[in-house]
Amino acid sequence: MTSDASSPISRYPAPSIEALPDDLRQRILEVQEKSGFVPNVFLAFAHRPDEFRAFFAYHDAVMLRPSGLSKGEKEMIVVATSGANDCLYCVVAHGAILRIYAKNPRVADQVAVNYRKAEITPRQKAMLAFALKVATDSAALEEADYDAVRKHGFDDEDLWDIGSIAAFFAMSNRIANLIAMRPNDEFYLMGRVPREKK
Amino acid sequence: MTSDASSPISRYPAPSIEALPDDLRQRILEVQEKSGFVPNVFLAFAHRPDEFRAFFAYHDAVMLRPSGLSKGEKEMIVVATSGANDCLYCVVAHGAILRIYAKNPRVADQVAVNYRKAEITPRQKAMLAFALKVATDSAALEEADYDAVRKHGFDDEDLWDIGSIAAFFAMSNRIANLIAMRPNDEFYLMGRVPREKK
Amino acid sequence: MTSDASSPISRYPAPSIEALPDDLRQRILEVQEKSGFVPNVFLAFAHRPDEFRAFFAYHDAVMLRPSGLSKGEKEMIVVATSGANDCLYCVVAHGAILRIYAKNPRVADQVAVNYRKAEITPRQKAMLAFALKVATDSAALEEADYDAVRKHGFDDEDLWDIGSIAAFFAMSNRIANLIAMRPNDEFYLMGRVPREKK
Amino acid sequence: MTSDASSPISRYPAPSIEALPDDLRQRILEVQEKSGFVPNVFLAFAHRPDEFRAFFAYHDAVMLRPSGLSKGEKEMIVVATSGANDCLYCVVAHGAILRIYAKNPRVADQVAVNYRKAEITPRQKAMLAFALKVATDSAALEEADYDAVRKHGFDDEDLWDIGSIAAFFAMSNRIANLIAMRPNDEFYLMGRVPREKK
Amino acid sequence: MTSDASSPISRYPAPSIEALPDDLRQRILEVQEKSGFVPNVFLAFAHRPDEFRAFFAYHDAVMLRPSGLSKGEKEMIVVATSGANDCLYCVVAHGAILRIYAKNPRVADQVAVNYRKAEITPRQKAMLAFALKVATDSAALEEADYDAVRKHGFDDEDLWDIGSIAAFFAMSNRIANLIAMRPNDEFYLMGRVPREKK
Amino acid sequence: MTSDASSPISRYPAPSIEALPDDLRQRILEVQEKSGFVPNVFLAFAHRPDEFRAFFAYHDAVMLRPSGLSKGEKEMIVVATSGANDCLYCVVAHGAILRIYAKNPRVADQVAVNYRKAEITPRQKAMLAFALKVATDSAALEEADYDAVRKHGFDDEDLWDIGSIAAFFAMSNRIANLIAMRPNDEFYLMGRVPREKK
Repeated sequence: MTSDASSPISRYPAPSIEALPDDLRQRILEVQEKSGFVPNVFLAFAHRPDEFRAFFAYHDAVMLRPSGLSKGEKEMIVVATSGANDCLYCVVAHGAILRIYAKNPRVADQVAVNYRKAEITPRQKAMLAFALKVATDSAALEEADYDAVRKHGFDDEDLWDIGSIAAFFAMSNRIANLIAMRPNDEFYLMGRVPREKK
Repeated sequence: MTSDASSPISRYPAPSIEALPDDLRQRILEVQEKSGFVPNVFLAFAHRPDEFRAFFAYHDAVMLRPSGLSKGEKEMIVVATSGANDCLYCVVAHGAILRIYAKNPRVADQVAVNYRKAEITPRQKAMLAFALKVATDSAALEEADYDAVRKHGFDDEDLWDIGSIAAFFAMSNRIANLIAMRPNDEFYLMGRVPREKK
Repeated sequence: MTSDASSPISRYPAPSIEALPDDLRQRILEVQEKSGFVPNVFLAFAHRPDEFRAFFAYHDAVMLRPSGLSKGEKEMIVVATSGANDCLYCVVAHGAILRIYAKNPRVADQVAVNYRKAEITPRQKAMLAFALKVATDSAALEEADYDAVRKHGFDDEDLWDIGSIAAFFAMSNRIANLIAMRPNDEFYLMGRVPREKK
Repeated sequence: MTSDASSPISRYPAPSIEALPDDLRQRILEVQEKSGFVPNVFLAFAHRPDEFRAFFAYHDAVMLRPSGLSKGEKEMIVVATSGANDCLYCVVAHGAILRIYAKNPRVADQVAVNYRKAEITPRQKAMLAFALKVATDSAALEEADYDAVRKHGFDDEDLWDIGSIAAFFAMSNRIANLIAMRPNDEFYLMGRVPREKK
Repeated sequence: MTSDASSPISRYPAPSIEALPDDLRQRILEVQEKSGFVPNVFLAFAHRPDEFRAFFAYHDAVMLRPSGLSKGEKEMIVVATSGANDCLYCVVAHGAILRIYAKNPRVADQVAVNYRKAEITPRQKAMLAFALKVATDSAALEEADYDAVRKHGFDDEDLWDIGSIAAFFAMSNRIANLIAMRPNDEFYLMGRVPREKK
Repeated sequence: MTSDASSPISRYPAPSIEALPDDLRQRILEVQEKSGFVPNVFLAFAHRPDEFRAFFAYHDAVMLRPSGLSKGEKEMIVVATSGANDCLYCVVAHGAILRIYAKNPRVADQVAVNYRKAEITPRQKAMLAFALKVATDSAALEEADYDAVRKHGFDDEDLWDIGSIAAFFAMSNRIANLIAMRPNDEFYLMGRVPREKK
């Protein structure tokens, strides 16, 4: 098989970065500077600048907000619920981020396939059980579900965080599946091998 | 049974409108001016101002954007997918908006229960079939699904609209279920009886 | 959209009331006298007089029988299970009856979408959980299911009532879906606005 | 294991045949005369005489009505849909009747497990596919489903028969599961061995 | 309906017993000697001798191994999980074996349809609940599932047995469905009538 | 997070390699020689030598047999169906093997999450669609399923291969989930980075 890197980023045309509105171009250049490449989600959403702005504003609001959840725990929720939704882009891209935050090269594959078998704490398993119920059967949430998470020390704001991340990626997964967003080749290996010292 | 109007708007405390950031308060007062009441979704999201801003920015980006879909058709997607997700708030609130846009007091109940039996066009049924696949099984989308909608005259931008609305409300439905957002009493009757002439 | 009232009542031809057997015609005239219109279920079933007789005899046997359940509670079961079965006719027609019995213009929409969020008592929620298990997964009924309802004060005869109503409407919903029975326009608004004083 | 014949017929008390209303007692004695035993469904429903009358009236209306379906084909529908609903009483009791009508000692077990592998005609397989859709997902019925049966020569009245039998046993299966109705020991062997000549 | 006995044993050609490798022919002749006929599973797998050898070696390893489960209990697992997988060959063939081991002509039909209503012990019901979870949702197994079986006296080796039988027949059921393996006519009646004394 | 390598290989005790029967010890030493480590599946199954022998005999019979499927295509089936069954061990271990055979570091993650988005040929997608139907709904296999694969050039022996691999891993996945088999750390990175030249 030949490399995938020249394949389209999605079913929709990739924009010219130069022709984008200033704020989009600036965000894209920043992420490129930081990551060494532009994750395709930025290029795919740039097809619709207003949706780009709202999407990343929502992402940042739930993912960057100070919280009772660590950054790694937030990414676990992303990977577990994206696995349940069979979303290739999110499993691969957020799997990479999870490996880096958790400093564990195995945990993303574990959480994507079956969190019950993952090298994570009972508290994290309870968190993921709740997140998956939000992702897959939110109408059936009952007091017992909230209580099962609370007894691990999560408070009501944490519950909002867990549920909102599951909900935001319910949206992201569906859009990625809709437009067939392709994960960048770089994500597959990130966090799997020790970084070289500079 | 007594009125529901004094019940909490959700599992989380309702904010004091006066204490909200200016931009939130202004949007809330505008919607109150226009609708005669404040839909609870505005009060519930005001608990988290950054999420409020991003949520409504996304909502406006997909729902107010000029499109090959009419405003009524967009609301049909909201009601049909919210029905599939058993989301009380969205079925009731967007059902009201759909009745008004469609000038039809029955169509929202029909679409919420089973779009196949609704008084809508074959084109609209094809649109809802696609939206429901995005809502409930997006990983299984195949070319045949896109083709089935395209043959009714929807183009690729329309497909993005249909799918993005289904995806945005996949998020909204989960948050509403998570926090048990209560629909305002006003929504239940809106659009069911002819407006009185002034 | 134009009115639906001239659309066919189902996939099958509507009978001429005059040409019906006496007992059917009499029952139809009685319900017309009482309700002000003939619900389409009477016309649709009149296509098969023996099935008409048995259907309404069964309906009356379970719905009119003195019981530990109130009339409103029985209609809640109808609406909740018909919602689970996506049956437009039964959700709309029995939603109307539920609103009238419960004297609550919101409860039918709530129960049809998600009884867990409805303005009903814990006892009624337990009753609906049991009814929905009968409706959707009766083979898996276990002692714990019976016990969960009994502890709210329902006795064995009440359990028969709850289950039989769920079962009878499992049949009704399937027939209504099979023949595409159309709810009369009148049902949509019934019980939503206060009756005018005469 | 010891014989089951002394076990209760259901979760509810069996009535005394002598104490039953005349019409029930007469029907029960007739079936006993004809079959050599009283199928437990008669005793179980006798707990509620009005429901007994309506249940068997409905049963007779759909099962005994002259039809484009043979008696054996009607019982195939019962067995296939009861298999899908995991209803022990109906699979065993109607399996016996099917074996007798079809003069085939294997067909009931085949149809109960997987009609696609049964020794039946393509026309009968199409009939059962339609019946099973009515039984398990009636809301999703579409024109293509009706057409798939019609092309095997079934007309609209036959479609009503197929669907109504599936619907009636959707009710029966749920009641049998609810009350844990026990199949009589006699049914298990009926139709499996050639009748002895008298 | 005419006899099925001349129909093909599966979608693949039946081998000539004479032309088979010695070990296969010998095993087949042994089973014919013991049973009076050759179960079609032997002929169907003989199409691929290496798979034949491995299949029956695995079968014997789990089914003939001394165990905390009786032979009848092992066959109950086969019948219950094959029922859940809608596998005609395994329900019919192993149903026969179960009837013989259990000396009960009803238990196989009961367990195939719904083990909750079967004439078996609470211990056996717990065993089947665990086996069915392995068969249908093994990824969701949790400590509570293991504990629920252990409290009936099953130890860890018994749990391996229960799960491995469910797993082995998960394979068998899929192969039988894939190749449309036909149960021999003889199985349908075996164990249903008392054996004639010699 | 600390390394997982000292965690137990499964819920059951790992055997002492020295104490194993000769044939098991020899096979284990061979695989260790070839791979540089002992995959945990060999140690886990060594708990039951007869099941070890039959398991690997079956594995070899279907996986090593000359076939119209390439070795890489066979591993695609393993990874796709193990993904559908949420089996951590098989997704991780066979994902490694697939990457090596396919000389593609991305394809295993793609196939495990959603084969429809993978960098594979239409022929391979058809093969996986058929394999997944065998894995998840084999009772519903119909002629159209066989035809859809055949038109890509697969013959009846290839169909047996595809289905048998899906079936064998239906068993493997369930056993791995039952005993909580842990993938060796080595698998996670295999095939993701170019091998160093010697």
